[in-house]
Amino acid sequence: MDAIAPDSIHALSAAERAAIYKCIFTRRDVRSQFRPDPIPDAVLARILQAAHHAPSVGFMQPWDFILVRDPQVKQRLHAAFQAANAEAVEMFEGEQQSAYRALKLQGILEAPLGLCITCDRSRAGTTVLGRTHQPEMDIYSAVCAVQNLWLAARAEGIGVGWVSILRYQDLRAALGIPETILPIAFLCLGYVSEFLPAPELETRGWRKRLPLSGLVSFDRWQRRDGDESLLRLLE
Amino acid sequence: MDAIAPDSIHALSAAERAAIYKCIFTRRDVRSQFRPDPIPDAVLARILQAAHHAPSVGFMQPWDFILVRDPQVKQRLHAAFQAANAEAVEMFEGEQQSAYRALKLQGILEAPLGLCITCDRSRAGTTVLGRTHQPEMDIYSAVCAVQNLWLAARAEGIGVGWVSILRYQDLRAALGIPETILPIAFLCLGYVSEFLPAPELETRGWRKRLPLSGLVSFDRWQRRDGDESLLRLLE
Repeated sequence: MDAIAPDSIHALSAAERAAIYKCIFTRRDVRSQFRPDPIPDAVLARILQAAHHAPSVGFMQPWDFILVRDPQVKQRLHAAFQAANAEAVEMFEGEQQSAYRALKLQGILEAPLGLCITCDRSRAGTTVLGRTHQPEMDIYSAVCAVQNLWLAARAEGIGVGWVSILRYQDLRAALGIPETILPIAFLCLGYVSEFLPAPELETRGWRKRLPLSGLVSFDRWQRRDGDESLLRLLE
Repeated sequence: MDAIAPDSIHALSAAERAAIYKCIFTRRDVRSQFRPDPIPDAVLARILQAAHHAPSVGFMQPWDFILVRDPQVKQRLHAAFQAANAEAVEMFEGEQQSAYRALKLQGILEAPLGLCITCDRSRAGTTVLGRTHQPEMDIYSAVCAVQNLWLAARAEGIGVGWVSILRYQDLRAALGIPETILPIAFLCLGYVSEFLPAPELETRGWRKRLPLSGLVSFDRWQRRDGDESLLRLLE
């Protein structure tokens, strides 16, 4: 099974494939390394196009993009983070609480650009091809747009941090998002002084990377026998 | 704003960036072009590693991967698709119903590999860093894993189709997924005879690609004034 694929005529070149994996493996959630340099419009246009070319159920393209550069709006979002984070701290106890407090979890004020990606659930009418039995599919499409953008940004040398310690109501209020629109992600974007070699939560001992071989099963939930040679490659 | 970024020292090379965009722009949802050739373990291991390196809230890594090669399991999933699709057809009317009927929406039996990506919401305990105020963040992490895998597969010349016309209960039953685990995506994977030049739903006139410039606003929902030069680049 390890031979060259018999039919990889449509594969990207070896150098192109290496670039894809490099981008995927060196992507980071950035909170602390933002530099203030603005993102040129040409670069920003490319990474927004990458997001816009995400898969979407029924070709809904349910996303909108709110770019945040206004310092007052950033201040309001930062205050919203602080309020939520004060609550979050109290949900952890003992050593874990101390460890949590020591982490910097967002770069809202330092990043030159904020970006809210939303989902308009009514964009393609009430009945949407592919969403008839899995109603969350439009939301998942918007998340795919986040990930496309994240990878394109990494390729451009731009760090992205997903700030999820925000009450949805505060995010809506800060950006004037109506009740009919679902906020999916608030991101911070900017060039960085460095991309850390590993996820910060891993380096700091918050949580380890799991062995992939333990997450793969065959034909049925947690049936572990089926392809020993694959499992060995995943160890 | 269109000059070379002042601080793109961490950007990938021009050739690497081009590869990322090529991969993103030529990725397709594949339903009809699957070839039967098996995916070599070494290739499968790489695309699973790509999924495993998705961002995850609190470094939860909430995903599991069920690989489906058993023809009987595929048959059962295909029957589940047919049952759901018979209901879906009836939700459309007139010309749209005829157009819907003419579309091939999955390749469950032809694709050599099925893959279910799930989300274990309890993987990191009850209190998860970053999920305290946006409880969906673990689900979104699993969706990011889907998109990473989709792009890596495209790079390898492997088509992916996301089959969402399935009742969750049927998907759970076919794969023995317990109630505590959330199925996120059932995917078909395989080498392809071609990657279509554009999304099939676009080519067939189901729905057009939206102009990106209409989806971008500044500092507030649907505030369209803010960066005319960016909007021109998005037209």
